[in-house]
Amino acid sequence: MKRVGIVGAGGYAGIEVARCILGHPELELVYAASDSQASVKLSEAYPALSGHCDLAFSPLDADEIVAKCDVVFLAVPHTASLALTPQLVEAGLLVVDLSADYRLHDPAEYEDWYGVEHTSPGLLASAVYGLPELHRDALVALQDADERLIACPGCYPTASALAAIPVLEAGLWAGGTVISDCLSGVSGAGRKLVRSSMFCSAAESASAYGVAKHRHTPEISQTLSEAAGTTVPVVFTPHLAPFKRGILATVYLQVQPGHRVERFQEVYEARYADEPFVTVLPQGIMPQVASVQGSNGCHIGLALDSRTDMLIVSSAIDNLDKGAASQAVQAANIALGFDEQAGLQCMLPAVV
Amino acid sequence: MKRVGIVGAGGYAGIEVARCILGHPELELVYAASDSQASVKLSEAYPALSGHCDLAFSPLDADEIVAKCDVVFLAVPHTASLALTPQLVEAGLLVVDLSADYRLHDPAEYEDWYGVEHTSPGLLASAVYGLPELHRDALVALQDADERLIACPGCYPTASALAAIPVLEAGLWAGGTVISDCLSGVSGAGRKLVRSSMFCSAAESASAYGVAKHRHTPEISQTLSEAAGTTVPVVFTPHLAPFKRGILATVYLQVQPGHRVERFQEVYEARYADEPFVTVLPQGIMPQVASVQGSNGCHIGLALDSRTDMLIVSSAIDNLDKGAASQAVQAANIALGFDEQAGLQCMLPAVV
Amino acid sequence: MKRVGIVGAGGYAGIEVARCILGHPELELVYAASDSQASVKLSEAYPALSGHCDLAFSPLDADEIVAKCDVVFLAVPHTASLALTPQLVEAGLLVVDLSADYRLHDPAEYEDWYGVEHTSPGLLASAVYGLPELHRDALVALQDADERLIACPGCYPTASALAAIPVLEAGLWAGGTVISDCLSGVSGAGRKLVRSSMFCSAAESASAYGVAKHRHTPEISQTLSEAAGTTVPVVFTPHLAPFKRGILATVYLQVQPGHRVERFQEVYEARYADEPFVTVLPQGIMPQVASVQGSNGCHIGLALDSRTDMLIVSSAIDNLDKGAASQAVQAANIALGFDEQAGLQCMLPAVV
Amino acid sequence: MKRVGIVGAGGYAGIEVARCILGHPELELVYAASDSQASVKLSEAYPALSGHCDLAFSPLDADEIVAKCDVVFLAVPHTASLALTPQLVEAGLLVVDLSADYRLHDPAEYEDWYGVEHTSPGLLASAVYGLPELHRDALVALQDADERLIACPGCYPTASALAAIPVLEAGLWAGGTVISDCLSGVSGAGRKLVRSSMFCSAAESASAYGVAKHRHTPEISQTLSEAAGTTVPVVFTPHLAPFKRGILATVYLQVQPGHRVERFQEVYEARYADEPFVTVLPQGIMPQVASVQGSNGCHIGLALDSRTDMLIVSSAIDNLDKGAASQAVQAANIALGFDEQAGLQCMLPAVV
Repeated sequence: MKRVGIVGAGGYAGIEVARCILGHPELELVYAASDSQASVKLSEAYPALSGHCDLAFSPLDADEIVAKCDVVFLAVPHTASLALTPQLVEAGLLVVDLSADYRLHDPAEYEDWYGVEHTSPGLLASAVYGLPELHRDALVALQDADERLIACPGCYPTASALAAIPVLEAGLWAGGTVISDCLSGVSGAGRKLVRSSMFCSAAESASAYGVAKHRHTPEISQTLSEAAGTTVPVVFTPHLAPFKRGILATVYLQVQPGHRVERFQEVYEARYADEPFVTVLPQGIMPQVASVQGSNGCHIGLALDSRTDMLIVSSAIDNLDKGAASQAVQAANIALGFDEQAGLQCMLPAVV
Repeated sequence: MKRVGIVGAGGYAGIEVARCILGHPELELVYAASDSQASVKLSEAYPALSGHCDLAFSPLDADEIVAKCDVVFLAVPHTASLALTPQLVEAGLLVVDLSADYRLHDPAEYEDWYGVEHTSPGLLASAVYGLPELHRDALVALQDADERLIACPGCYPTASALAAIPVLEAGLWAGGTVISDCLSGVSGAGRKLVRSSMFCSAAESASAYGVAKHRHTPEISQTLSEAAGTTVPVVFTPHLAPFKRGILATVYLQVQPGHRVERFQEVYEARYADEPFVTVLPQGIMPQVASVQGSNGCHIGLALDSRTDMLIVSSAIDNLDKGAASQAVQAANIALGFDEQAGLQCMLPAVV
Repeated sequence: MKRVGIVGAGGYAGIEVARCILGHPELELVYAASDSQASVKLSEAYPALSGHCDLAFSPLDADEIVAKCDVVFLAVPHTASLALTPQLVEAGLLVVDLSADYRLHDPAEYEDWYGVEHTSPGLLASAVYGLPELHRDALVALQDADERLIACPGCYPTASALAAIPVLEAGLWAGGTVISDCLSGVSGAGRKLVRSSMFCSAAESASAYGVAKHRHTPEISQTLSEAAGTTVPVVFTPHLAPFKRGILATVYLQVQPGHRVERFQEVYEARYADEPFVTVLPQGIMPQVASVQGSNGCHIGLALDSRTDMLIVSSAIDNLDKGAASQAVQAANIALGFDEQAGLQCMLPAVV
Repeated sequence: MKRVGIVGAGGYAGIEVARCILGHPELELVYAASDSQASVKLSEAYPALSGHCDLAFSPLDADEIVAKCDVVFLAVPHTASLALTPQLVEAGLLVVDLSADYRLHDPAEYEDWYGVEHTSPGLLASAVYGLPELHRDALVALQDADERLIACPGCYPTASALAAIPVLEAGLWAGGTVISDCLSGVSGAGRKLVRSSMFCSAAESASAYGVAKHRHTPEISQTLSEAAGTTVPVVFTPHLAPFKRGILATVYLQVQPGHRVERFQEVYEARYADEPFVTVLPQGIMPQVASVQGSNGCHIGLALDSRTDMLIVSSAIDNLDKGAASQAVQAANIALGFDEQAGLQCMLPAVV
């Protein structure tokens, strides 16, 4: 059993990491930091954990993490990871960072979009972007690495990338701007008390936000460009939708003319045939957010508008799971040499 | 007082027309046909009308409509209007058709997308597409016309067109495929008992449907092309979202380079300055579906992605009102020479 | 036209009063106080009002109210009305108080349940409890009164009282504890940012709160006792339910044995036959919250458990309208000598 | 591994049994009958199961069940179990019946409330009512029984019984009618296409149904009477509330005067101290439906209205799990000699 700590455990992503660890056969939750809820039991803050967990939140203490933990998950806002990660990596822990701090390879781009200087650019080279479907080999290589840092993908980038990677890798993309139009459930805004996350603001409504300026844009572009082998310009529009958990991405890619939709269907099915958590739905079936809620799964469906040679790919994930916590555990499983599905198989999503 | 009949009054759009008429100072509801609910009171089928309306549904009888009504609203599936409209127009009634049967100018396109022959193509020339913001003059001209037929726009085409018209008219569009990515509330699927409209299917979920083949595609393209003065290719993706009423359209248009967002903001504000039901929100504010529910309003917000010269326009309407019933009343008001806002002003949307 | 001011206009009840006034033929909104949102336009805080209202919130200033207004609605927390009301009543305004400060006739009971001293007990004698269905005569008498103060009923007391009054007045109640088990939409908790009002807390859930200690308990008991002519002990349990607006009350009353349900149905129908806003549904039909949302209506249905002689009465209202804002306008209409339905007729609820 | 069959596997309770079996270490799903969906894959009907299950629905064939299965779960409407159960029990299978057919001990009462004759009253004596918290010993005794039939409790009876049992067993109940006022999520109405289960009917609304005549009334009364050792009259009012899964029961019991709330809190905590799936929340905390969704847990909170000596107990369960499928597995685990928690531990509920 590896001993696990979570920083930012009181937030939605952090507590979802806790939920994953509590059901994991090889990981034991020994530490959960939340400055704002220190000494409160996890099960008081989240009554769903009553009877499942007796731990209380601790105030953040990096030395205690080093002393107690083999693995640490950082579910913190950007810059908070910059402050913590170097010490934890150096101490030999596997650091699984759910923040944005080590996702972008180019520190200048980080500074452009996040408005702060990157204080440990040296770690960027060793950080592995934790999308197993694209970087499994690099995650495996962490098993023998000295510096072990996983930069977990953002929720929108995960859904967008899984939707776009196969056609980009297959060389069928015709260029132009790729559009990712996404819906997110309200938990995507986190646990903080903001007006747009109120029931009376969000229920029976929907709206776009962060249009043309959301920080996930360069991350999506970076991953799509890696898959394409060339720069892929991206326009990304997030929307708030009235469900608690989940992301639905609709990705528009101009493709080479002359192909039938069956060609693309084959490309997608072949690409994900061996991926345990990605399901390409039969031609004509589109994914539903509810089908993946509470699980590490990603469902994908696609259609071709042959009048305009536009491929439209729809993907659904749970923003807190495949978009955050359970994907972090999936990546950690690989980096620790465990079965990649350990602790994630029994997370069957609810069927109704 | 003009006497009004509604055909298909038992469905969601039809009963919403009834709600509009019941609050209208110049129109009196005298007839409501619903074969499936004949002899049931409107207030039994829709308890919200208890105390507001004593009428019962009648079985459909075209002769009775001609005898009793000055104006008839057809809230029927496509082809049902083909069967009824010629007789009603010939009898001198103002026919306000909410179906798709007289929207497309080209009967061949109708047959392509709807899979049936158009049986009264002669009426297409006189039918006025009832989007007041684009065709007000033609609606005014109906006041003195012999044949009086309004083909009311579809819900998605209304939201998409209002979002795109200003930039197309202004000559700032740079060509390419225009993408309209839309969310609709569940009432958009109508009152019929289908699995995807069940609470347990729709709540806490979302999904795309009809991708690359929805019948509103040629209608959107037709209207955008009229505004642009040239053919505008359109890709349209509708999504089902978990709210009862409303549409949120996100429209992507490649624009001429070199302009700042303020330029587009001015174009939109100028275009809609005199429109009583269209509100262009301040720069940086995006529309929320809840702001227009239960009203004839349309809210519009826009952003420019200057890296890619992509204009992103977001528009919100109530699919049953501005997307169907209240817009039909607005168009009828004009065609009847009433104040365009008659009966629609007190439909202040709920603020919470 | 009477000039209207609203204090606490930025909250949910206050802004709903504004919505009612904006559609009222005899009332003009001239002043809206909100210290926390001073100088913000109402339509910025509530985009649904865009195009309907150009007013901005003012900081609270009692002298300004006296100078500008004929009528003032106080949509404030308890004790805030104690501080304001005496001055405004003395200045001759009609004060329509939506707070709890003048509802309980006995200042000692106020102090018991609200934990503060009542600082103007002298006004309690002249305050009229603004439930038109029970106190219409007293409201009419305000037309010629010197002190004009309406203490508007709470939302739960309105729903509970309308459900219980007929059987209590008819002498069919058999005594014992009356139970009122209620659901409220999330707007009942107001606009403030609290965890239980977050979408991720409230959606797909429900819970009881304030059990055995909610402050509406003595108010319900007071009104039921007035109707019964004797003290009626009440147990009241509120629940939070995942809708935005509305209250559903289920009231349990032990009744005299030997009667059939038809007897109670007749009592209810007779009691409310002339009430414009109360609808007794046909025997066997139970009210739905959605049927009254956005309106001043109250729907009532009842059943008799003849095995136990328990009458079960279900009533539905919109907590922000019949439970607050529109009922306040209804009461004010009477006190001002207007048509009781003025401004409230066109608030037809949405039918879907 | 025991081989499991499910009859009525296409409905909500049946497919939830499948979800439980798919994650169970000792049970293997080999057969799933659904006449209406025969030959459709479970994962086509319920895409959430994609990648988790390759089985297709079979047409119902009792001989096939006997040949293939050791255990069979019947998730069927009442009377369908009457037709199947005798043969399956006689063939030696463990029959876990989720229908109502063997719940009431008295066949006359069954006929009164269900309107049909009970065709196998002889089996009623051996059927064990599968509420482990009340009948664990009888379930254990099934391990060595010849006839092995578990009559699983209804969803409302489970929530109501767990709320009332401790105070009834402790002799603190003062008599009178016990009221159980319950909310159910929409899945409680099953998968069939009915108007009240439509999104546009159920969302943003709530209503009572089956008032004073719901068939769970005698079942609740029977279980409460067993706990009390005397007849307990029950009034039961179910409500439909806008969430997918879950029941919230509010139970009102007149109690002996002179006790403080702490006394009742102790009684409840002691009663459930060793129950793995029942959590008594700390005094003052009330259960939330969301805390138990997707799990076999039951959360309980209580308050005392000392003015009226009324104990108010609130309990929350997932109607499809503790109220149906997972409770059936829990009972089967006991009857099969497995760890009672087998397959149910990893069903940690979602925390957001």
